[in-house]
Formats: sequence, C-alpha cells, structure tokens
Amino acid sequence: MKVSRRATFNAAHRLFRSDWTDEQNSQVFGKCSNPNYHGHNYVLEVWLEGDINPETGYVIDLKTVKDVINSEISDRFDHRNLNLDCPEFAELNPTAENIALVSWNLLRAKLPMHLALTIKLWETENNCVEYAGN
Amino acid sequence: MKVSRRATFNAAHRLFRSDWTDEQNSQVFGKCSNPNYHGHNYVLEVWLEGDINPETGYVIDLKTVKDVINSEISDRFDHRNLNLDCPEFAELNPTAENIALVSWNLLRAKLPMHLALTIKLWETENNCVEYAGN
Amino acid sequence: MKVSRRATFNAAHRLFRSDWTDEQNSQVFGKCSNPNYHGHNYVLEVWLEGDINPETGYVIDLKTVKDVINSEISDRFDHRNLNLDCPEFAELNPTAENIALVSWNLLRAKLPMHLALTIKLWETENNCVEYAGN
Amino acid sequence: MKVSRRATFNAAHRLFRSDWTDEQNSQVFGKCSNPNYHGHNYVLEVWLEGDINPETGYVIDLKTVKDVINSEISDRFDHRNLNLDCPEFAELNPTAENIALVSWNLLRAKLPMHLALTIKLWETENNCVEYAGN
Amino acid sequence: MKVSRRATFNAAHRLFRSDWTDEQNSQVFGKCSNPNYHGHNYVLEVWLEGDINPETGYVIDLKTVKDVINSEISDRFDHRNLNLDCPEFAELNPTAENIALVSWNLLRAKLPMHLALTIKLWETENNCVEYAGN
Amino acid sequence: MKVSRRATFNAAHRLFRSDWTDEQNSQVFGKCSNPNYHGHNYVLEVWLEGDINPETGYVIDLKTVKDVINSEISDRFDHRNLNLDCPEFAELNPTAENIALVSWNLLRAKLPMHLALTIKLWETENNCVEYAGN
Repeated sequence: MKVSRRATFNAAHRLFRSDWTDEQNSQVFGKCSNPNYHGHNYVLEVWLEGDINPETGYVIDLKTVKDVINSEISDRFDHRNLNLDCPEFAELNPTAENIALVSWNLLRAKLPMHLALTIKLWETENNCVEYAGN
Repeated sequence: MKVSRRATFNAAHRLFRSDWTDEQNSQVFGKCSNPNYHGHNYVLEVWLEGDINPETGYVIDLKTVKDVINSEISDRFDHRNLNLDCPEFAELNPTAENIALVSWNLLRAKLPMHLALTIKLWETENNCVEYAGN
Repeated sequence: MKVSRRATFNAAHRLFRSDWTDEQNSQVFGKCSNPNYHGHNYVLEVWLEGDINPETGYVIDLKTVKDVINSEISDRFDHRNLNLDCPEFAELNPTAENIALVSWNLLRAKLPMHLALTIKLWETENNCVEYAGN
Repeated sequence: MKVSRRATFNAAHRLFRSDWTDEQNSQVFGKCSNPNYHGHNYVLEVWLEGDINPETGYVIDLKTVKDVINSEISDRFDHRNLNLDCPEFAELNPTAENIALVSWNLLRAKLPMHLALTIKLWETENNCVEYAGN
Repeated sequence: MKVSRRATFNAAHRLFRSDWTDEQNSQVFGKCSNPNYHGHNYVLEVWLEGDINPETGYVIDLKTVKDVINSEISDRFDHRNLNLDCPEFAELNPTAENIALVSWNLLRAKLPMHLALTIKLWETENNCVEYAGN
Repeated sequence: MKVSRRATFNAAHRLFRSDWTDEQNSQVFGKCSNPNYHGHNYVLEVWLEGDINPETGYVIDLKTVKDVINSEISDRFDHRNLNLDCPEFAELNPTAENIALVSWNLLRAKLPMHLALTIKLWETENNCVEYAGN
C-alpha cells in the first residue's frame, strides 16, 4: 500500500555550474541560465510504501508526512533563491533532478525507514521528475 | 499495456475504532474523528494491465470498467456515510488505505483475472493512496 | 482590479428541511438527503475588488485574506458535519447556495468594506456556485 | 531518476476495423465507431529513466524531448484524422492502446537508447493508457 | 446567486465555409481546416443566475441542469462529427464561438426563463469562449 | 461573446520598494521580499469580448492572440527576473496586481481596440488577480 502527500513551494533558481563561465552556462542551459534567476511554483508529491498498521488503518499518519515536508522542504526552499540561499545548491546545479535528489535525501532522513520512499517533483505543469533512491 | 478509468464519489466518514472511546479516537485521529462525521469527494483511478486484444485493439473496453466501478463502488459508497451505511466499514476504520483495500477487493472480484489490477484513491487533492493487491 | 485567494475544507452534510419528514426530504433531495450524511471537499475562492494601494502594490495582502478564511470558514466548517456541528445550518438547508450565502456574510463582516466581495464555491468538480451579495 | 515532458494534440478518430462492416464495428465499438468520426484533445506524458549526467545535472535536456515529441507526434497527429490522414492507422484500429503503441515506437527510435521509455496517454480526463514497451 | 454544472463531450470538426474552396478555407483557418477533420474533448460549463428558492435552498436543482445538458448537448454532439452529423452546423462554421451560440440557444429553450443563462466552452485547456446571449 | 487564450511563463521576483530599506520591505512583504528573490510559474488568461465575425465565425483568431502573448509577455518576462531584467518593474513593485496592470497595457496596445480586454493572472494555484482596465 502506497500513500502520498502533496505540497508546493516557490523558489528562484538558475541552471549554472560555478566552474563554467556565464557564456558556457548559457550555451548549455539556454534561458534557464539567465544570470538574474527565474523561478517556479514547485509541486512535490511524497509517496511512502508499506503495510497498513492494523491498529490505526494508516500506513502512516499523513499529518506526520505534512510536518516533515514543512520542516525539511518548505522551510528550507520556499520563497528562497536555491542558488544563493540554499547551501545544498552552492556547488550543485539546481536542476529538477538535483532538487529531487536533495529533497529525497532530506526526507529519507526524517521518515520511518521501514517505508519505501518515492518522490515526484513538478517544475512546471509540463515538466516532472521522479526519484526513488538508488 | 495499462489502461485506466477515473470516477468520483462523495461520502461522509469518521476515522474511528469502535473498540476505542471517543477520547481515544480523538487523540489518535484528531479532527478526522469528529463524532458527527465529515466528508470528501473521493477520486478513484482503476488501472488494468495486460496485452492488447488484437481483435479489438483494447486491453479491455473501458465501458466495462466504467460499469463495474458504478455497480461495485459508486452505487455502494456514493452519497453514503461509510461508517453507518456501509457494512464493509462497520468494523473497519474507513481510512483512505482501508477504503482502497475494500474497493480493490470489490473490483478484483468483477474484473477479468488475467488483467493485473491497481487502484489510486484521492481523498483530497493533497492526499492519495495506491494499492495493487498483496 | 480583483484579487482572489483559494482554500479548501472537508465537511459532511445532508440536504434536509427539519420541518419535513425524511420521506419528503428524500423525494425532493434524492440521495443528497441520505439521513446518515455524505460529504465533500469544498473549494472556496474569495474575490475582492478595489484599487491598488500605491504604497504596497497590493489591493490587499492576500495573507490577510488567507487568515480571515482560516478563522471564519476553515475553523468553523472544516472536518465538521454542517447540519449537526454548525449552528448556521441548524435551521437552514446546507445546499451549496446556502453555504455560499452564509460564508459570504461571515467573510463580509471581517474584510475591508471598501473592497467588493464575490465568492465561488465548488461542491464537486462539476458543481459550483457564485455569490456577490445582494 | 525519471523525468517527463507533457504535450497535447487534437485529432479525430473512429474505432474501426476495415475488415468488418459498419454494423459489426458499431456493435463492438458503439458510438466510438460513428462513421463520420469524433475527436479528442489527447494529452501525452513521455517518461525517461536513467542516471543524472554529472556534467549537466540532467537525465536529459527536456528541450530535446520536447523537440522529439513535436517532430514525431505533434507534427504527425495534431489536427489530423488518425484513420484517414495517418498511414500508421490505415490498417490499425486507433484505440488509445494502439496510439500509445505507435507513439512509443516512434519516440523510442529517436530518444537515447540508454534511457528507459514509458508513456502515458489520456484520451479524456477519465481514460488513460500507459505503455513501457514489451 | 449563480450556480453552474460542468459536462464534457467529444466531437470531430473542421473549420470550414461551404461557400469557400478547400484552399480558401486552408488559408484562413490553417490546420484547423484539415479536410479529414480533427477533434476535441469539449468542456461545457452552464451558469444560471437567480434567487434562491426559500423552499429548497436551490436556485435550481442541478440534477435538472444535468439532464438538460445531456438531452440538448451530449446526446446531440457527443461522439459526433459536428460538420457532417449535426444539421446545426451544415451551414455554420463550427468555431468554438458558434458552438457556444448554438448550445446557448438549445439550452435557453429548455431552462427556466427567470434564470439568466451564461455558458463557458473550453475547446482545449488553453482556448475558451463565454456567451451570455445578446 | 468572450474568447480566451491561456499561456504560462516562469519568472523570479521580489516584493520590494526601492525607496525602502530591506528591513522595511521585509516588515511589509515578509518572505516575499527575500533579497535573493523567489519565483513562480505564472498562468495568464487573456479574454477578449466582441461580436462574432460572420465571415469567419471567430471573435478573433486565437492564433493571433497567442502570437501577441508570446511577443508582448512571454518574450519579455519568461525566464526573467522581473525586478532586475524588466525595466517595467525597475520602479514598480512586481506584485501580481502590478504585473497584471503592466501586462494589460502591453496587450491592450497590440490587440484590436474594438474588443474589450480582461486578463486573469495566477501567481500560484491559490492566488489570482483579474484586471479589465479602468
């Protein structure tokens, strides 16, 4: 049985490798590398898989998942500039893939280990990534 | 090849164990255990996996799936109080997980056995469960 | 200039006139009058119209609107049985129209009078009402 | 890590086997076999699975996926009659399943082979198919 | 107080004036004039405005509106070719505007005259028309 | 008859008055004034009202509206930092209200004057503004 909780956060970012020049970044990442940043309303879906607890009928109380998303993701990334405000992306290009990777690790550390974790992250209504660990 | 059909139904419920007091239920389930019930517009997605029938080009006629959802799920749960009107939940706490479990069993009994069955159930736009049998 | 804020709440209700018998209610309101209640995920959109404040660039800070929706609507109706838990509907049939009427009056009393107020309320993804006062 | 790109196209079709009579087609496919065709806004989601390229932080630049969807799917099927305009369906009944099958093969030929490909295709907001090759 | 009911129908069409050549039609209407037709999942929202009936708490029972939409719109246009199957468009170009005009007139004739009627019609998720009579 | 076209663009912004200190901006605008910017996927709906052209059956060819949105809005604001990259907001706080005001003026100058113009702009799925000129 899998359960999921959805949340949103708004952030600015720029696709950018700090070891490349602006020209190199612009050639590879196009307008996504605009030096002054652009932004998104990110939508995050957190999925947990495990058995139903016969006591409660829950796999996990989604209120708990909501609280972990708030403390680990929203408080960290919402209304932030991912490149400038978030040490996680000081050396890591904040593509949707890397944001998913970082978010998965942050969530994994705070959610019960007996539940398998998968996340989906929409950058726009047309672009989405999914990560389940490796 | 997987195919799916979506449907909706509206129901009232209360998270509640009949062997617990209202206080115990309230402690564990919070406002979801309000003794007078609250409700949801549930959204159900029924997925079936199998080979394409070379005769028709269908895995299964989704009209059939629609009819089975109507008779097994909508007629049973739509505009009902899950705790009071539905014997399935007389002794079973109607969490989204348990509603998915019950729905899966009801659908499994009426849909062709050569097609693997998975269902997704949204309780709100933020909360979702998925079940594929065990 | 109009601005809006969206919110959701989950509630049980029953279409019911207390001065009619269950039979009469059932004849007029059909399965919406199930004596044990059913429920919905209501979606509320609150619109305010007025001039932009040249100081802030806001018509109104939507954080204020969010707080008023929380205190006046969500705290009152979310995870409640509208017929049993909410005195507003003790004598008033909780149709979408009447819920909109009651909500509009509650919001009107707490939002700045120089801003015209209109609300939209979705009962399901197919049914919606809109009210702008009279 | 999986990434996806969404696109839409509008097309007419008729469920129809050319080796059956109109009556036979109508018996099996009902109103979906109306001889004068009907149509849909198809929504396509293209998923690719593979490792993040450490150089770019991408699994694949979704701009590339967008371009392949445009040249292979939109240019071929958008604003077309699938039965009459598209040789792919001259002998193949254009069910959602078969459109997915054909689209998957067209996309597979143009997308990097080290990335696993899955597609989802919505025919309406209630009907969807998913295909990952065989 | 305004109330609305949403419905969907699928149809093929071609933007086409019968008194123009295919070339002229193609020049003005582009790929929307493909001689073999293309299609859409149309979404229709029917709005009625009037006073709440104090007896029922309804402006109008939306079940009635649903039935009128079914008999006047869905039964007439769903799974049809608007140009070939629907006499309404034999001489009238089935643009979204004209479909809205025709639908409004069909609905107006069957819905209570004391309720003002407005309709919205989505041709795609990006294109919409609204008509309130003239 | 009203017709509309929807489009999206992604941008970074910061609620900020250049004649206030960061502290003053932070007090009034909260986390929306983060000095390093945050961002949104803006959704824009452009509505035009007028008579149907009896020649074409269009109020206006939405392809034209699409092109004007691209040249006036998307090319100007998409993947930009509204505060730093867009002279329109050098002295004007880029609230949703002011973005709507600026966008309306840009669109008004390029769309036929006999058609009344209204726009809706979603900053998030919960926050929206509407402007029809003054």
